[in-house]
Amino acid sequence: MNLARKRGFLWSSFEIYSGVAGFFDYGPLGATLKNKIMNKWRNYYVVQEGFYEIESPTIMPEEALKASGHVDHFNDPMTECKDCMDVYRADHIIKEATGEEVEGLENQRLTEILSEEKIHCPKCGGHLTHVWSYNLMFQTLIGAKGKKTGYMRPETAQGIFIPFKRLLRFFRGKLPFGVVQLGKAYRNEISPRQGVIRLREFTQAEAEIFVDPRDKSHPNFKAVAGEILTLYPAISQEKGGESIKITAQKAVDNKIVASEMLTYQLCLARRFLMELGLSEDVLRFRQHLSTEMAHYAIECWDVEVYTDRYGWIEVIGIADRTDFDLKSHSQHSTEDLRVFLEYPEPRVVKKLRVKANMGKFGPLFKGDAPKILKALEEIDAEDIKQSLDTDGVFQLEFNGTMHELTPDLISFPELEENLRGEKIYPHVIEPSYGIDRIVYSVLLHSFTEDQDRTYFQLPAEVAPVEVNVFPLLNKDDLGRAALHIRDDLRKENIIAEDDTSGTIGRRYARSDEIGVPFAVTVDHQSLEDHTVTIRERDSQKQVRVLISNLPETIKGLISGKIKFEEF
Amino acid sequence: MNLARKRGFLWSSFEIYSGVAGFFDYGPLGATLKNKIMNKWRNYYVVQEGFYEIESPTIMPEEALKASGHVDHFNDPMTECKDCMDVYRADHIIKEATGEEVEGLENQRLTEILSEEKIHCPKCGGHLTHVWSYNLMFQTLIGAKGKKTGYMRPETAQGIFIPFKRLLRFFRGKLPFGVVQLGKAYRNEISPRQGVIRLREFTQAEAEIFVDPRDKSHPNFKAVAGEILTLYPAISQEKGGESIKITAQKAVDNKIVASEMLTYQLCLARRFLMELGLSEDVLRFRQHLSTEMAHYAIECWDVEVYTDRYGWIEVIGIADRTDFDLKSHSQHSTEDLRVFLEYPEPRVVKKLRVKANMGKFGPLFKGDAPKILKALEEIDAEDIKQSLDTDGVFQLEFNGTMHELTPDLISFPELEENLRGEKIYPHVIEPSYGIDRIVYSVLLHSFTEDQDRTYFQLPAEVAPVEVNVFPLLNKDDLGRAALHIRDDLRKENIIAEDDTSGTIGRRYARSDEIGVPFAVTVDHQSLEDHTVTIRERDSQKQVRVLISNLPETIKGLISGKIKFEEF
Repeated sequence: MNLARKRGFLWSSFEIYSGVAGFFDYGPLGATLKNKIMNKWRNYYVVQEGFYEIESPTIMPEEALKASGHVDHFNDPMTECKDCMDVYRADHIIKEATGEEVEGLENQRLTEILSEEKIHCPKCGGHLTHVWSYNLMFQTLIGAKGKKTGYMRPETAQGIFIPFKRLLRFFRGKLPFGVVQLGKAYRNEISPRQGVIRLREFTQAEAEIFVDPRDKSHPNFKAVAGEILTLYPAISQEKGGESIKITAQKAVDNKIVASEMLTYQLCLARRFLMELGLSEDVLRFRQHLSTEMAHYAIECWDVEVYTDRYGWIEVIGIADRTDFDLKSHSQHSTEDLRVFLEYPEPRVVKKLRVKANMGKFGPLFKGDAPKILKALEEIDAEDIKQSLDTDGVFQLEFNGTMHELTPDLISFPELEENLRGEKIYPHVIEPSYGIDRIVYSVLLHSFTEDQDRTYFQLPAEVAPVEVNVFPLLNKDDLGRAALHIRDDLRKENIIAEDDTSGTIGRRYARSDEIGVPFAVTVDHQSLEDHTVTIRERDSQKQVRVLISNLPETIKGLISGKIKFEEF
Repeated sequence: MNLARKRGFLWSSFEIYSGVAGFFDYGPLGATLKNKIMNKWRNYYVVQEGFYEIESPTIMPEEALKASGHVDHFNDPMTECKDCMDVYRADHIIKEATGEEVEGLENQRLTEILSEEKIHCPKCGGHLTHVWSYNLMFQTLIGAKGKKTGYMRPETAQGIFIPFKRLLRFFRGKLPFGVVQLGKAYRNEISPRQGVIRLREFTQAEAEIFVDPRDKSHPNFKAVAGEILTLYPAISQEKGGESIKITAQKAVDNKIVASEMLTYQLCLARRFLMELGLSEDVLRFRQHLSTEMAHYAIECWDVEVYTDRYGWIEVIGIADRTDFDLKSHSQHSTEDLRVFLEYPEPRVVKKLRVKANMGKFGPLFKGDAPKILKALEEIDAEDIKQSLDTDGVFQLEFNGTMHELTPDLISFPELEENLRGEKIYPHVIEPSYGIDRIVYSVLLHSFTEDQDRTYFQLPAEVAPVEVNVFPLLNKDDLGRAALHIRDDLRKENIIAEDDTSGTIGRRYARSDEIGVPFAVTVDHQSLEDHTVTIRERDSQKQVRVLISNLPETIKGLISGKIKFEEF
């Protein structure tokens, strides 16, 4: 992290104002690294999977977050020191003191543990208060008038659920379909003390895949069925067991992961991280314990990356959110967010109908008879019949009067109805990527110490500077040629820089340090035969190519279509 | 806008909760259109100009925004109806009532105008209150403890000024350099009523170019000198004149625009918008009147686009912010944000030094003499000499005692000093792009009504779907071949979709409607000779190409390297 800071990848925000915990800047190298990781994500989910991206506001009105459950449930357990008045996350200081994972326990229980284990303020040793729930959303007010309460969104997902009807129309009413969003989300952490690992403002890339709840198979599952996953199921964690290596197919067959849809997402996530240079042995999938699961999920797998400093950290969460969100937004708003799903064939359904025995019904209710019959027809005929069968009477309130209907007044002929389909709430499978933690993991695991070099061995595809162009000597003709070559590379949308200061060795070293995968050197021979050398960062080997082929060659090297070893 | 909404480009946010004014969603087509425009911007500023991107938080602490002037000056004039209690922007309702532009006038004057012109509440006709200033930032609180006040940033620029020292180090202390940021900015508008034109949450792309204040020339100005700009200078506006067409070179020579640096940015902006399909005659550069200029700028040009509905709207602002921001952050923080600029040659400067006449000085001050001399040396020798010359005495406070120094105690020998350079605050040239308004302008001006089609004639480069692949008939073998071709295109990172529903004519029409530039059709001949047709949206012409060449051909067509007419 020190090197990442010095070299311009990322640093704490607002340093000249003494900083504010939980906020980071991406510097000139970090921002482009992050963008490239996000664009790779788009390639995976938007281009290859065919999902569509949307962008919704980061400020949301209270009603929407009331419906999503965040106003009531997006809380952390907090405790305060009675002496120094500092505040802590209760579960975190219990874990620090006892080593035990207590995330998800009730406040009552956490308070008990604090007292049983005699845990005191880590700073001053003072007594801690009882544990209470602290809502993690940043609150604000919208508008000059009326002062509508709003919050900074706690996740990008809600912005996809809310306009679900418009999205469904865009996809012409058919399931499954996927919609993604990349953007900022916010969590007003109680006291964030883990640098870029626990940010108050962070970037998510989330996909919400809407599926028929009766069919969570994946049409393309075969393509990943043989991939081997390192799974750490809840049951193994509870029994103190180890993680297991198992194929995607077997994970589904043995019901370790509930559906093909979920498992397919685990495989995509693994492939994504490995292409970013993370190796198999620092990756695992850990299933959430029932106590730690978010309020909306029935199954959740964290993709975790191993770090020396923080142990295993979650970088991606893959959850089955069921119909929680769409149902809840339907109940809290005026819109019905169900989908009409056609049956493959229309179904014939037998149904009871209420029929009045008008000979008795008419005289009894007189002018009200038609209206009372109508009211009856709006009630489920099965319910009426059951009342009559068991109680011998059905009570109907009409216009404030209670009428007792007896079996002689009504009969129940059976009808056949053709049903074309039914309305259901789709279920949602959600891979949720924490982009900041992925950037951190990539920097961490790409950091390499050679005999005489320390550098970031970033995959060429995501390196923030793609190629450096150096004149061998700082002479006018070589310098001009180098700038010309740099500009030709830029015209092909390649991120190319130049550097003329210091020896060529020093310039190679600087280039390596920040992870530039290729360096082009212009020398005297270049002026004669129009060739330059390309030096590869990792092998430090050089090849000579024609200047006219350079842009295509560099493009091929960056995308991986050309291998440096094959020159 | 109606069509853009229906077809999935953008719509009002939170519709199912009755909406909140000033917030928009980008739908499945809009978000990708917007991303592509932002990536094009990155190509211009990051890749071609060689600026670097950074990313800073959207939440900022109060100190930083106090320094930037936003806490005190980021206000709009507000008035309230005494009857219906609705609130208005005073300058807006005056303009609506009188047609006169009063932006930037004092609240006092606006109150007078409301009364003089007898302007009442546009809704109920009620009386309006006096005008007061309303701060436009969304406020929030950071942290569970201490409750630090924060705001959603009003512009991305501040996030670049604050870590200026780190950025300067990254660029190894040399000017000029450019740093950009793309991201959300916020403005809690009083009562936004112009759809996507006046958003409370919007996206900016800003470049801050740090230059030596004594040299605002541009090294590459020649490349744009001949471009013709439509300028509407402040003086023409004041005199009721028209805009003028003039080359960039003449605009600088005649001092219509103050510097090459500014003018170069006008040219880039013009080229950018024209490549997005906006034609010359809907573009102009309007200079800010002194009354409407932001608190930090000395010169500002708005790039405006003409719209039928709203007239000329600002889409880009290009300003010379001088040293306002860096100076102010230096004063409010503990950091000196000046840059040490070396002179081409070291300069010899003559300076006075304070020299004590130790024969008298020593005996007078005894043990304190060395300390008093040291205190003297820290004061500007010129000031001491002037005091002695005019008053015959210089008063020095030392250790709480006032000492009177007389001319016999000190002399002022002249010294020569070699100055290598000096510390200065750089000036800042800032192009600030309003991405949402650019997206709106592109949709507006790309909307085309043919004899029998209405469609968005989007440039291929920014079209959200790049190619559709259709089987001519919905038969198994053609369908499979189409999906195969679609997937091969996707592997080359091309956004490709398929569609099998309805007649081929209907599918072409749907494809045109959302601006897909190319449609590939797989027919029976395809299965025999491995060719498909490519149909171009605008000309509706078709050509037949080999399937094996398709990805390269489509890529070339999208990037403009291959012209459809040349087939």
